[in-house]
Amino acid sequence: MTRQKPRILARRLAARSGIFRVEAVDLEFANGERRTFERILGGTDSVMIVPVDADDNLLLAREYAAGSDDYQLGFPKGVVDAGEEIHAAAGRELREEVGLAAARLETVHRVSVVPGYIQHGTRIVLARDLHPDPLPGDEPEPVEVVPWPLADGDGLLARPDFTEARSIAALFLVQRFLARERRAAGGA
Amino acid sequence: MTRQKPRILARRLAARSGIFRVEAVDLEFANGERRTFERILGGTDSVMIVPVDADDNLLLAREYAAGSDDYQLGFPKGVVDAGEEIHAAAGRELREEVGLAAARLETVHRVSVVPGYIQHGTRIVLARDLHPDPLPGDEPEPVEVVPWPLADGDGLLARPDFTEARSIAALFLVQRFLARERRAAGGA
Repeated sequence: MTRQKPRILARRLAARSGIFRVEAVDLEFANGERRTFERILGGTDSVMIVPVDADDNLLLAREYAAGSDDYQLGFPKGVVDAGEEIHAAAGRELREEVGLAAARLETVHRVSVVPGYIQHGTRIVLARDLHPDPLPGDEPEPVEVVPWPLADGDGLLARPDFTEARSIAALFLVQRFLARERRAAGGA
Repeated sequence: MTRQKPRILARRLAARSGIFRVEAVDLEFANGERRTFERILGGTDSVMIVPVDADDNLLLAREYAAGSDDYQLGFPKGVVDAGEEIHAAAGRELREEVGLAAARLETVHRVSVVPGYIQHGTRIVLARDLHPDPLPGDEPEPVEVVPWPLADGDGLLARPDFTEARSIAALFLVQRFLARERRAAGGA
């Protein structure tokens, strides 16, 4: 079924803070139904990097999350700067947060977060062939880097601080990507 | 490493719209570094329901997403009302969006969305033993229900409208849950 998108009757700025702008949108659906929806503007695209080291460990970042007011374990991530190429952004964030550069970067998938409320895409980027090459970042305190065996996804999922849907999706997507790669290489 | 959480020095309402309230929080990290973070208040918990029918089809919902201004395919979801039990909310949303009641509901996992900016938990609930029992919902137009073979997760991931990290995580988490169940039943 191909549906006619709702028609936008009016748009106005409903609120603005230091980093968020909220827009109210008056919509008319194809069936004539009218609703006002709110959405957050200016969602910039981001990258989430899944670094895998030579010992088949995932490298995770443990950082303070203001929304949940606790420390969250997840894959390093960051905003793609204006005009910046995806893998350049991934490589930069990896150097800033984990202190490693990657000779091999591959985009595994693109995901969105809450598309009902925000226009945003996150590219999941697998990073391999790592070597130390730190870059100063803008983090308020040094990021705690937590290595985790790639083979122990179940243990990672059981951790109470590994909850973000993007990180969970990234874990499974990278496992699938690597399993396909192994099959393509004839199980080698 | 157990880290001391940053100290909250001050909090103030930075913006408010019809549905969003943004709070600015002045933080002092354990190393003395000070930052002002913004977070969205009042994130209510929600449920995402993964319905599996008797023919081993997933039942997905295709709905207009205002943030991305397009139709998105994902698992049915909704807010848990105040005082409502998780499975009651899951059963209600499934009846409203898909028109089916489930005799069997199981919580598979809890995920968060963007914990850096919002306090929010989504329970992933597997729904089985389905029978027709619709309930009127508050959707602006009827939800398009899309059946998808559970065995064809790859085809679902290849769809350009199946992007939300929560739905992708839910797909993999339910596949893992069902695989464990089969193993526990001796491969039957």
